[in-house]
Amino acid sequence: MSPPAAESTNVSGWFEGMRHLYPVRVYYEDTDAAGIVYHANYLRFAERARTEMMRCLGTEHRSLMHSDGVAFAVRSLDTEFFQPARLDDPLTVETRVDKVGGASMHLTQSVFGAADSTNPLVLMRVRLACIDGDLRPARLPGAVRAALTDLTQEQ
Amino acid sequence: MSPPAAESTNVSGWFEGMRHLYPVRVYYEDTDAAGIVYHANYLRFAERARTEMMRCLGTEHRSLMHSDGVAFAVRSLDTEFFQPARLDDPLTVETRVDKVGGASMHLTQSVFGAADSTNPLVLMRVRLACIDGDLRPARLPGAVRAALTDLTQEQ
Amino acid sequence: MSPPAAESTNVSGWFEGMRHLYPVRVYYEDTDAAGIVYHANYLRFAERARTEMMRCLGTEHRSLMHSDGVAFAVRSLDTEFFQPARLDDPLTVETRVDKVGGASMHLTQSVFGAADSTNPLVLMRVRLACIDGDLRPARLPGAVRAALTDLTQEQ
Amino acid sequence: MSPPAAESTNVSGWFEGMRHLYPVRVYYEDTDAAGIVYHANYLRFAERARTEMMRCLGTEHRSLMHSDGVAFAVRSLDTEFFQPARLDDPLTVETRVDKVGGASMHLTQSVFGAADSTNPLVLMRVRLACIDGDLRPARLPGAVRAALTDLTQEQ
Repeated sequence: MSPPAAESTNVSGWFEGMRHLYPVRVYYEDTDAAGIVYHANYLRFAERARTEMMRCLGTEHRSLMHSDGVAFAVRSLDTEFFQPARLDDPLTVETRVDKVGGASMHLTQSVFGAADSTNPLVLMRVRLACIDGDLRPARLPGAVRAALTDLTQEQ
Repeated sequence: MSPPAAESTNVSGWFEGMRHLYPVRVYYEDTDAAGIVYHANYLRFAERARTEMMRCLGTEHRSLMHSDGVAFAVRSLDTEFFQPARLDDPLTVETRVDKVGGASMHLTQSVFGAADSTNPLVLMRVRLACIDGDLRPARLPGAVRAALTDLTQEQ
Repeated sequence: MSPPAAESTNVSGWFEGMRHLYPVRVYYEDTDAAGIVYHANYLRFAERARTEMMRCLGTEHRSLMHSDGVAFAVRSLDTEFFQPARLDDPLTVETRVDKVGGASMHLTQSVFGAADSTNPLVLMRVRLACIDGDLRPARLPGAVRAALTDLTQEQ
Repeated sequence: MSPPAAESTNVSGWFEGMRHLYPVRVYYEDTDAAGIVYHANYLRFAERARTEMMRCLGTEHRSLMHSDGVAFAVRSLDTEFFQPARLDDPLTVETRVDKVGGASMHLTQSVFGAADSTNPLVLMRVRLACIDGDLRPARLPGAVRAALTDLTQEQ
């Protein structure tokens, strides 16, 4: 009579080589009166994908904050919107780690529709800073930095 | 080198008897400065769960609108908030169909945390109307009504 | 060449007798692919209006938390959606205080369009609890309670 | 006994020379569990400010769509996040028109806190396209283009 353990059923996406892939479905909440996904909501999709990539690497926001006293903050975000997505569309967010520094990282995140896996609908270049509880720059915890750096090495 | 077909990897939840279960993960976007999920966001979770329950039954919003010319609108919503959810929490939204009318349906939707499958964090009683493109009441398409009615029959 | 002091230019609404009135404009972010305001967003409008009513009474969330160690949490919310609002619509949220207890309050909040000041588009009955930093029930600070109680006395 | 005409009480901001200024208040809905404004929400603030700048110039989204058959879509958005804003903060969004083309425009939008009118918290460079109902590039209506072009002429 009980719901299944939710822990096991949420989607964290998966890695394909160095790329992390994360599926997103478009709901009414994501769309606007123009009938398409409201532009700011792609940033929410990207943040979900980053969170799940970190979870795939063994790290959660809350444990990062509690055990290491750090969090990630978006410092800059360059976004190009090529094509719109619509209600009910199944999307995939691809995340690549471009560069990892002592207290920051650079990612490229692309949102793909189901019909075209070459040309993204939206392309984002994101720079994240590692910060402490007072929002000041902090060093990336060693294990996190190592795991992220591994993802920058093309094999 | 291409992302996998997104179609197959999105989560639509599943039925357990008459109950539809849908997993949701709490992201930063869902929380507020009190450190918990912002109350209005449970309504977004519930709408995602309703959408996926309909998809499990073979119906999508967009095709409903295009082929039948109808959509669902929330008419009333009674919500009780018992316990807060927090960042990174895995949640499950349980949806039950209480009653199906000619142009409406009544659902009960409960949001559960991972630790307790008996006492929901949030409980919603939702009345939905079937409407046409001019936002006027419309009859539920026969197949949809039949599928929903099946879910009200306790076995 | 500097922007004017933002402090003085934000809208906090105003009282008309016992009713607090707060104007809201509908932007793209508030709408969905059905061309109307997404239902959960009326809860955001209502929370803005409650916040501004409290500000009119001399209280801000942040100072409440810092000096009194308390915040407000929504405990229950009964909502009826009568008519939709659309992009660019100017709305007014009316807030009435129905009852004030030692650690809770009951409000009625109505969202009106520009054309009809009698029949609300949306009607919400809200029960709020005063909670402390551990999310436990806490007594309303005396000055806040007195100010809110004044608003329940029809003159 | 009726609410005042909402039309007249919403804030559209104002021009100071070539700059449009628009006040925004930070509510719980805008913040996240880190205690600061969720990064994607600055894009919502910016879109509200653009909408109100257009309204100051005599144009509304809905009438643009109905009478001219066009709308604006964000094509690219470069954003830098310098300092966080917090709950209850009064902000000002400054919008400048950098360039107006036949079917596009470039804006710079800066979000300022109350304490510092020189260094923005967030800086956005936005490229907007004018599109028709099929989401294809369309020429800016003449009156809109003329009004926007006026704003690019430093006096």
